[in-house]
Parts: sequence; structure tokens; C-alpha cells
Amino acid sequence: MPRKRQNEDAILRRIAYSFRPSRNQPARQFIALGIGDDAALFCPKPGHETILTCDWFLEGTHFLREKHPPDSVGWKCLARAVSDIAAMGGAPRCFLLSLALPETHTGRWLDLFLGGLRRASRKFQCALAGGDTTRRNEILINVTVVGEVRSASALLRSGARPDDILYVSGRLGEAELGLQIVRQSQGSASKKNPLTRKHLYPEPRLALAQWLVKKGLATAMMDLSDGLSSDLPRFCTASAVGARLEKAKIPQIQTPEVAVRHGRDPLQLALHGGDDYELLFAVPLSKAKLIPETFRGVRLTAIGKITRKRQLMLLEENGRARKLMPCGWDPFRKTQ
Amino acid sequence: MPRKRQNEDAILRRIAYSFRPSRNQPARQFIALGIGDDAALFCPKPGHETILTCDWFLEGTHFLREKHPPDSVGWKCLARAVSDIAAMGGAPRCFLLSLALPETHTGRWLDLFLGGLRRASRKFQCALAGGDTTRRNEILINVTVVGEVRSASALLRSGARPDDILYVSGRLGEAELGLQIVRQSQGSASKKNPLTRKHLYPEPRLALAQWLVKKGLATAMMDLSDGLSSDLPRFCTASAVGARLEKAKIPQIQTPEVAVRHGRDPLQLALHGGDDYELLFAVPLSKAKLIPETFRGVRLTAIGKITRKRQLMLLEENGRARKLMPCGWDPFRKTQ
Repeated sequence: MPRKRQNEDAILRRIAYSFRPSRNQPARQFIALGIGDDAALFCPKPGHETILTCDWFLEGTHFLREKHPPDSVGWKCLARAVSDIAAMGGAPRCFLLSLALPETHTGRWLDLFLGGLRRASRKFQCALAGGDTTRRNEILINVTVVGEVRSASALLRSGARPDDILYVSGRLGEAELGLQIVRQSQGSASKKNPLTRKHLYPEPRLALAQWLVKKGLATAMMDLSDGLSSDLPRFCTASAVGARLEKAKIPQIQTPEVAVRHGRDPLQLALHGGDDYELLFAVPLSKAKLIPETFRGVRLTAIGKITRKRQLMLLEENGRARKLMPCGWDPFRKTQ
Repeated sequence: MPRKRQNEDAILRRIAYSFRPSRNQPARQFIALGIGDDAALFCPKPGHETILTCDWFLEGTHFLREKHPPDSVGWKCLARAVSDIAAMGGAPRCFLLSLALPETHTGRWLDLFLGGLRRASRKFQCALAGGDTTRRNEILINVTVVGEVRSASALLRSGARPDDILYVSGRLGEAELGLQIVRQSQGSASKKNPLTRKHLYPEPRLALAQWLVKKGLATAMMDLSDGLSSDLPRFCTASAVGARLEKAKIPQIQTPEVAVRHGRDPLQLALHGGDDYELLFAVPLSKAKLIPETFRGVRLTAIGKITRKRQLMLLEENGRARKLMPCGWDPFRKTQ
């Protein structure tokens, strides 16, 4: 083979090697044919629907080449797509990786990127099935994740009913604060700073979501990727309902003084900050008592209720209510 | 809703409206849940494997904003991914569209793009299931196609055996010549020039591929996307075989004088030109007589045979054989 055509094949071999079969990879059982042919073959589980989702992860838009550790880029591009599988109450099975890279990034950067991606792949039991690779001046990533859920049991956004209690998992605003810290860092951000961990290495709430589906506790669910104030309207529109949140109940970051030091208000972070990948779900009043305070260490908080009136209201501590305006992430927003 | 968050939602609504349900869309039966939730739900057919493939289609790399009609960009981004489904002998079911656009292209350009995409979607019976949209200075497209094939009957690259006859569908080099003409055109290329049709509106060979699978005629198959000289080595490597092509038999463009006028040799176009999306397949000698000269108007040509010796040879008209070097499309090749 002449040297000139080794480059693309060499990259494919590196990816294939990085994701070579090993023991303790239950997800591989679902892949009848992986990398190397025209397409991949996935074996669907009888009685299940297939969940399909894809996500852009683009340099400059979703991460910064100089500031985000390549290991985090690898982890996060998969984690955020897997979070959409969690949001349906499903289990991830496999993923396709579309990667466009500058030639300067086909060495060490690619290795570190694949390292983070592989860790995420094992953690979420979501095996690499295939993909597409090309050269580009900017790093472009697109991830498609295939998951499964028992037929007719996926948790959609559209099932919430008036008087349902609205819950969120975890704390909101931590990822946005992490982004601020990464932006302000000199060079590549530290992978070990606990304040940036949720921004760099988000954890989709798979176990919680699957538990909610199994127990039949929730009527509707979505993951929070663009911020509560932007995602809640989508949730309510899908269900043709409104919501009233209690400001005092919205779980904020644990270290408010750090937010203030970075010029950010913890409540604003919690309302409008994106990238948390926490779950927002509605539970009928009669079942709310079955929702524990924490699930496997993740806090679950009732933040308000679903209303028949199709308005989004925020109830202040003084008892007054004001309209909640969507101020989360929107790539087409002029101000960004 | 304040104006500032309408943009992304407006684009999603335009896409959803463009692909709204209508009669005569058998592919929609496979989608239990389409655009609008966290992910899509696909209903797999019992006894079938799911085929998964994704493809980049990037401005500057795969098409030129000023020269490629948006309608063709829409058609082709789906057609080339569907061709990978054809290459396995499967039927496309649905696709996910990841689209990154400049704001200047969210009006007429997007409408024309969606028009071409919708025509392709109907032609290939491959319904839109979901996707992801963001803003970007360049037009970036990634398409994931989900298809199906009866379990254990997919045609892989790896099944070719020594003495199998090697076939291609159609004529090779037409798309590459079309690319030359588009590149040389002033402004947007004409959609009606028959010489650019194969480059702008390729037709994946779905019916032929499914017929080959149904009749059990082929041992291995792939689609030609990077050019015969680059794809054949992959085919042979997967099957651990070699091949000997007969130069005189390789089906070239019908109008060689046009190629010469554009400074291109028809044989070189046929050997190294990319983007044809024709099928390359191997047929056991005993079954070769069952391969017709044309299938639904598409020419089928025996171009050589599979050899035990793992070399790729091109047999000249004078009886001499020379090694075939891969000179097709490789995004990482230095000379591009």
C-alpha cells in the first residue's frame, strides 16, 4: 500500500483498536457487525422499541480546543447523547461516531479523546458500532446513540397532567458554573477540579430513569440540556400544560460563594444554566410519596407542580408569582 | 414567548412541517415517535437485524455552497448514506438529520434543501425520525440512516472467495466527471445537465442489492463511494483475497469525448473517480450465468475475478498485468 492512503485507514484502525473487544463488555452482544464494513448491524431485543438520538459536539460551539481536555471531549460527546436515551427511560446499546479532525490532531489528541470516549462507552455500556471520519480544519463531532426500551413504556415529554408534581434530579447550574471556570482558565482546564467536573464529565441519569419507568412513577420526563427555563417550556408545550415552580425549592449549587466570586447568581445559574443533563420529570400527586429524597446518591427535589393554565410561573419567597422567561442555551439566539 | 428563542424552534417546526405525515408513506409505520421529544422511537421488524450507518456531508469537503444547488445537497446527503444500507442488501427505514447552518441559510436555502431531502426520503422510503440543529458559519450535515435486513442475510464485504466473478453496476466515473463540470460552472450548477445528474442526484442501488440478497447470488458486496481503486482494496482485504480486473471490461462513461474535453481520461475516471454509489459484488462462478446484463435498466458488468493471491492486478488489453494503485478519494491524502 502506498503511504498516501494510509492516513484515513490508520485513523480507523486506531479507533477500532481503542474499542477492541474485551471481557466485561455486555453491550457488545447487541452488535452483530461493528467497524469495517459499509454499515453496522445491531440485533434488536424482541418486545423492545429502538431509541434513536444524535447530537452535535462542535469545537467553538460546544467545546474549546485549547481549554477542554481531549479526554473530556471524548467522554462528554457520548454522555450528552446517552442522556437523551436516559430521558426516555431506555438503556443505551451502541453508538456511531462521526469525527472530523485536523491532521495535527490525529496523534496525541486523538488518543486522549478516544480514552475518554472509551471510558464513557464502558461506563454507559454503549459499544462503538461504526462511524465516519474525515479531515477538517476544525474538530467536528456527531454522535448517534441507539438505545432500547420495552415497547410502549418510553417516558415521553407529553404525558404530564395538571397537579402532577414536578421533580428534578441533582443540582442545577453546576455545569454552567464549570463552563465559566473552564473559560477563564489559562490553557487546558484541570480535569480534577470538582467545580468543573459536572461540566467536563456529565453523568446521564440512566439508573434513575430506568427505575422510574420500571416502577411506573412518572408521567413525563426529559433531560435538562439547555437550562430549566428553556427546557421546561418544551416539556409543558408537549404536554399542553403549564407549571408553577417554587423558587426556594430549586436545587442550586452547593457552593454559592464560588458562583458569586465568578460574578454569577446561584439561582440564575440554576434557572438558565445549560449542560446539567439532570432529569426533569412529573409524578402524579398520589405517587409522590414513593419518590425518595435521594436515589443512589442523587438528590431528587420536588420543585413545583403542573398546572392546567398554560403559563410558566415562578413563585417567589414572598408569595408573589412572576412569569419565567426562557433564557437558556439557544444556538440561534442573537446575543450569543 | 420572547422573540429571541423562536429561531431554533422555528427551524425545527419548518423541518417537521416539511416532513409532515402524508398518505403513501409506508416508511412512517416504523416510527413510533418522531421529531419533538428527547429521541425518536423506531419499531424493529421481528426476525431482522438493524443496519446503522452515518455519513458526513460538509461544505467545502463534500459540496460547495455556491455551486451545488441546495436541492441537490438535500438529496445527496441522504442518498449517499442510504447507499450504505443498499451495500448490505437492506431496506432503509428512517434517518436522523444533524444540521448546522449559518443564519443566512435558514430561509430559502433551507427550504430548497428540505425539498431535495424530502424527495429523497420519499423515493427511498426512508422517513425522517429526528435530528439535531445548531448554528454555524459553515453548512455541516451529518445523516444517520437506520435500515433493516433479514437476520443473518446481510451481504458483507468479507464473503468473497477465490474464482468469484467481480461485478459492478452502472458506469464508473460519471459522478467524478459531473464534479469537474460543477466545479467549473459559473455560480450554481444546472440541475438539468445530464452530465452532472449522477454527481448531484445519485441513486443508491437498493432494488438490485435486495434482489441479490433474495436470490442468494452474491458472496460479498460494497458500494463504491471513494472510487474503484480505493474501495476494491478494502473489499479484498475484508475477504482476505486479491482481484484481477480486465481493463477493457470496466464500464466507463458513455460520452468519452466530454471527459477528454474536460481534460480527463475515461478509464482514469472509472478507476479512481469517487461518488458513483454503484455496487461492487462478487458472484460464485456457478451462479454468474444468473446475473442479467441489466437489472431494471442498470447495466451489470463482470469486470474481473477474485484471486487467491492477495494482489490487485489490472489486465491490459495487450495481455500484460500491472498493479492497481489506490488513487481514489481519501480526505487525509496530502495532495488534496
